[in-house]
Amino acid sequence: MRITPRSELQSRIEKLQNLMQQQGLDAVLMLQNADLFYFTGTIQQGILYVPASGEPLYLVRKDLDRARMECGLKEILPFKSPKDLPGILSDFGYPTPKSAGMELDVLPVALFQRLQKVLDGCAISDASSLIRMVRSVKSRYEIEIMKDAALQVDRVYKRAREVIRVGMTDLELAAELEFCARKQGHQGITRMRGFNSELFYGHIFSGADSAAPAFLDAPLGGIGVNPSIGQGASYKTIKAHEPITVDFAGAFDGYLVDQTRILCIGGLSDQLTRAYEDMVKIQDRLKATARPGVAWGDLYEDCYALACELGYKEHFMGSADAQVSFIGHGIGVEIDEFPFIARGFKDQVLEENMTFAFEPKAVFPGLGAVGIENTFWVGADGLKHITFSDQDLVVL
Amino acid sequence: MRITPRSELQSRIEKLQNLMQQQGLDAVLMLQNADLFYFTGTIQQGILYVPASGEPLYLVRKDLDRARMECGLKEILPFKSPKDLPGILSDFGYPTPKSAGMELDVLPVALFQRLQKVLDGCAISDASSLIRMVRSVKSRYEIEIMKDAALQVDRVYKRAREVIRVGMTDLELAAELEFCARKQGHQGITRMRGFNSELFYGHIFSGADSAAPAFLDAPLGGIGVNPSIGQGASYKTIKAHEPITVDFAGAFDGYLVDQTRILCIGGLSDQLTRAYEDMVKIQDRLKATARPGVAWGDLYEDCYALACELGYKEHFMGSADAQVSFIGHGIGVEIDEFPFIARGFKDQVLEENMTFAFEPKAVFPGLGAVGIENTFWVGADGLKHITFSDQDLVVL
Repeated sequence: MRITPRSELQSRIEKLQNLMQQQGLDAVLMLQNADLFYFTGTIQQGILYVPASGEPLYLVRKDLDRARMECGLKEILPFKSPKDLPGILSDFGYPTPKSAGMELDVLPVALFQRLQKVLDGCAISDASSLIRMVRSVKSRYEIEIMKDAALQVDRVYKRAREVIRVGMTDLELAAELEFCARKQGHQGITRMRGFNSELFYGHIFSGADSAAPAFLDAPLGGIGVNPSIGQGASYKTIKAHEPITVDFAGAFDGYLVDQTRILCIGGLSDQLTRAYEDMVKIQDRLKATARPGVAWGDLYEDCYALACELGYKEHFMGSADAQVSFIGHGIGVEIDEFPFIARGFKDQVLEENMTFAFEPKAVFPGLGAVGIENTFWVGADGLKHITFSDQDLVVL
Repeated sequence: MRITPRSELQSRIEKLQNLMQQQGLDAVLMLQNADLFYFTGTIQQGILYVPASGEPLYLVRKDLDRARMECGLKEILPFKSPKDLPGILSDFGYPTPKSAGMELDVLPVALFQRLQKVLDGCAISDASSLIRMVRSVKSRYEIEIMKDAALQVDRVYKRAREVIRVGMTDLELAAELEFCARKQGHQGITRMRGFNSELFYGHIFSGADSAAPAFLDAPLGGIGVNPSIGQGASYKTIKAHEPITVDFAGAFDGYLVDQTRILCIGGLSDQLTRAYEDMVKIQDRLKATARPGVAWGDLYEDCYALACELGYKEHFMGSADAQVSFIGHGIGVEIDEFPFIARGFKDQVLEENMTFAFEPKAVFPGLGAVGIENTFWVGADGLKHITFSDQDLVVL
């Protein structure tokens, strides 16, 4: 178990303050668990108040002792309600902010309205892009944690090779793999930022089920064990000669990685085998082109064009009427971070030490889906693997 | 796997419309997964538009085919963006609402602001209490599903008796029990409504760890596997003569139940054994008094008074400086539903077929926690058990 070092927290806060100064923000207030963990090292209930310069204040309602144990920031203060905020700021000689940024992409309206009253006269804007830009570029410390999470998914992948058999249900396979990950220290709770976005270990499914359209913004969805979930493993039994997707999110010490491999019993049809190899080619194209300075959207367009050239226009990243317009997503504390390797995004470029998952997938309704996914970090001279399991199509 | 029957959906919508008419609301718009599942039977991306009278419209962005398969409502319509809403309403002969309710307790600000623009000139208020009141009273159909979830937690409890041994870690125990539940069809994803509230199967911990204060609004929290999670099982090893908490949320076909039992190896101290028995006495008091018409807050005060009388003023529902002011919480599609058996709430009364979990717990810093939790439904003549595992302190 790691406690985030103070030097990490300081450097993260500094980066945020630099962006705040560029944007003319007097303060940023953060309340959401993922952001709190990133900037404080813990997720105790409260508000992190970051001024444009000077020490941040972590105002903690519950639990103050835990905050003091887990958080390396200097100023950790008890507070009971947002109403205490102006008094605390003035005790610190901080003026009431005239312009403040908040996490408007995740803060619920009712909570926001209570905070707004307290910050009377302050212009409040959405700081989520600033926060997400800071979080998108990882430190060596963070990349090392993600490598630990990659060990977890490698074990899961190896376990899949051991346990898959004809007649077991997708759910039984999922249960085995989740059990394997949990025993390796998988933290269970995994985070997505998007509203209504929910994630549980990942997606384990086989054959036609892997091609079922679903509510989520993902190339594959699955049926799930019931309509309240609507994604992931179902009670379908595994048969020979159909693709089995093991798309698994490792989660260790607060960080995620995402890896997909395809397994099968007794081989796949030529069509699916070729499609798998073609998805690996698209990953190879990415590796040949992705480096600092390249626009997220250009990487997308280039890989998408290759997918079309290879004959997957109607199958790439979903089936014809349910295709998604991305191939990769930033990953770290949440699974939907910056950068997005997606349509548009012509102005945002890769930076050194960004981390993202790339998942070219081809979907064939009635037959299933194939593809590959790895998590990478952006080195000065190109992509480096964080997830590293064997990349061949596994034939059992 | 159940598909919610059309008659269920119709009766739920009708109850909401009755409340809307009482409050003078022209429309309620719902977007959040738990509410969507409850009122549509599925969670496809989109907006459920409920007029004060007439057919509700389920506007679906993704995936329309899944919505048509899983949702028993009559009007399921494709839409691309909230901007389409006025046009769709006018096609249906529905006027643009002058007053609308939305889920302001869970809707993020940025999304709300986009919706607000589309409903230009409409007064928007928080409909979350209305929605939660409708959801708090269950049908026979819902209670039967919760009984299935109770079978799941009973198997988990029995599995705990089989696998607990000196020297295993809390995390290993959690992994075994989660595996057991998942194989029984546990849906994995479980829902809490509160901002930043996160839940993963439940809380498995032993000895002093069960008395660790934590960020969450719960009597027990635990250490967790890392500070990004801050709750639940940790790497602590289980010893003889310490209480082991198995607080587990069963989750089946969209519904949750919550049950806690205490196990130990070789017996507990007299102090902890007596405390366990006293917590059962507090549950007995609840069973003797809870019935339709009794105020939520009165049940709380009565049970709290008994806890103090029995000597637990400093230990009840948390240790001295981290006590929570509730003993029970409604449960169903989410684990933090109405009713709250909590301080205050003098005006809200139990109604027949409400369901809630009641969890009197005593916390002793350095030693651990003991207590019991069951999920009940409110019958005409008093409480009925949904969870049913043997209630004795388990000595292995």
